[in-house]
Amino acid sequence: MNTVGLVAFALVGATKAIREEFDVFGIAVVGLVTAFAGGATRDLLVNRVPLALRSLGEISLGLLGVGLAVGLSVVLDSPDDHPITLVADAVGLAAFTTAGAIVATDAGLSGFGVVAVATINAVGGGAFADILLDRSPFILFDDFYASCAVLGGSAYWLAVAVGAAGSTAAVACATVAVGTRVAAVNYGWSLPTVQMFGPTRERIGDKR
Amino acid sequence: MNTVGLVAFALVGATKAIREEFDVFGIAVVGLVTAFAGGATRDLLVNRVPLALRSLGEISLGLLGVGLAVGLSVVLDSPDDHPITLVADAVGLAAFTTAGAIVATDAGLSGFGVVAVATINAVGGGAFADILLDRSPFILFDDFYASCAVLGGSAYWLAVAVGAAGSTAAVACATVAVGTRVAAVNYGWSLPTVQMFGPTRERIGDKR
Amino acid sequence: MNTVGLVAFALVGATKAIREEFDVFGIAVVGLVTAFAGGATRDLLVNRVPLALRSLGEISLGLLGVGLAVGLSVVLDSPDDHPITLVADAVGLAAFTTAGAIVATDAGLSGFGVVAVATINAVGGGAFADILLDRSPFILFDDFYASCAVLGGSAYWLAVAVGAAGSTAAVACATVAVGTRVAAVNYGWSLPTVQMFGPTRERIGDKR
Repeated sequence: MNTVGLVAFALVGATKAIREEFDVFGIAVVGLVTAFAGGATRDLLVNRVPLALRSLGEISLGLLGVGLAVGLSVVLDSPDDHPITLVADAVGLAAFTTAGAIVATDAGLSGFGVVAVATINAVGGGAFADILLDRSPFILFDDFYASCAVLGGSAYWLAVAVGAAGSTAAVACATVAVGTRVAAVNYGWSLPTVQMFGPTRERIGDKR
Repeated sequence: MNTVGLVAFALVGATKAIREEFDVFGIAVVGLVTAFAGGATRDLLVNRVPLALRSLGEISLGLLGVGLAVGLSVVLDSPDDHPITLVADAVGLAAFTTAGAIVATDAGLSGFGVVAVATINAVGGGAFADILLDRSPFILFDDFYASCAVLGGSAYWLAVAVGAAGSTAAVACATVAVGTRVAAVNYGWSLPTVQMFGPTRERIGDKR
Repeated sequence: MNTVGLVAFALVGATKAIREEFDVFGIAVVGLVTAFAGGATRDLLVNRVPLALRSLGEISLGLLGVGLAVGLSVVLDSPDDHPITLVADAVGLAAFTTAGAIVATDAGLSGFGVVAVATINAVGGGAFADILLDRSPFILFDDFYASCAVLGGSAYWLAVAVGAAGSTAAVACATVAVGTRVAAVNYGWSLPTVQMFGPTRERIGDKR
């Protein structure tokens, strides 16, 4: 799952950079940041040297995703919207959420810390990539994406809290994350804004 | 003071995100980032696991601030400009500056390190929130805000340098920070830009 | 070399902030971030307290660069484009790349980790400064700049891999970085974008 996720995340990030007409260095950086910055931030938060800087296997997968993005951009309009990419991305979201929850639990963080680190592991790379592309991270106002990581991380913490084994908690976490994400894509879920609650819409809208 | 600050900072950050029509996840993230990212960066810089990920009490205060922002947005035009918020924010600025100065001094940093970490602790969360909202951090070109943290941190370092006890230094730091901030709001202080020094104005202005 | 680099980087960063009409606090922050954020990120990635927070000598050089930027902005149109600045910046790029490669090798990182940390050390500060100025880091789509750090870091790693002494590797790294950078400025090198490979240009351009 982690393998699929690294390739998919790098592909999605690199495709965004291609669309912005970044040069090949920029494309590689945005792709690798999307795939690895979440995990690197997780490692920094629990005081570890980021895994991606210590092993070569994971980076090769990221570079494969970048190469796929470059190759596919020549034959496809938007390889990051292809159904296969969406499913692979959902699998990656689940894998990264689970990895974050496990590391955070091992580091003795609080329940909030477990959910926060799981979510950062899953969506931090994409959020950082959006900042490099000079936009607000899309997870903050669009789509039902980071919420799947929050739900998965909460499932992990809950499972551990009721005494389940680590492996059971991991399965619960991954299942919840990938399940809610696939459902969100299929049914077009999104979260409400405060403006949807009525009377504030115009007043606040006017101020922008 | 720290309690007041966490609630006020989260309220101010969440209000900004509401104004940008972020969804409820985005509102919570920007609010919590405003309240906690400064302290988390401080902890990373001195190689500690961020406190906010280890305890639950502080996070509850942040979530209270986010909830207040959502609730007050329905009844007030801009809860972040309310006089009570401005005072609470000044108290938070002083509390966070002091906390940063104490941690930095304990970690054996240089005089510059103490002032830098105190300032990052106080304004780093707001600066990061502005980046998430896709703008330049307001502290860099507007208002007399970060300067209060710089002055407070310098007061702490100076007090320690002349042999004062830690508690005396903390009182000096908090007093200077909150005092200069309240004065800045009342009298509309701001720092000069280079353009204000005359002949460069047009030449540099033309280049933008 | 490190001395020259710190002054040059701070000067370049501060000049950008002056052009955006930031106030003097903002100018100092962007200048110091350009000079020190790359090294600080390097230190965080290998779990060290950033050197710039522990010693005073380096910070003085950064402040000197900021002061030069303010002073020169009054008499020059754009001190950051002056030939002397460009050469000093190339020297700094080489010095920071080499420092990053040494620290990363000492920390036992993989070949990719060495190149990545060397590059982050060299260009991370400038990239972070661009984010503070609310733009995409220029290294991602413009110029042949970060590539010099990648080549220098690769030369270091290669030299160590074939059994060269650390000092030989450092000389190779610095020579490659400064040499390719000076050549890039003189001959106007840049990296290709994917759009340059033809048929994708219009399709992807249309989507923006």
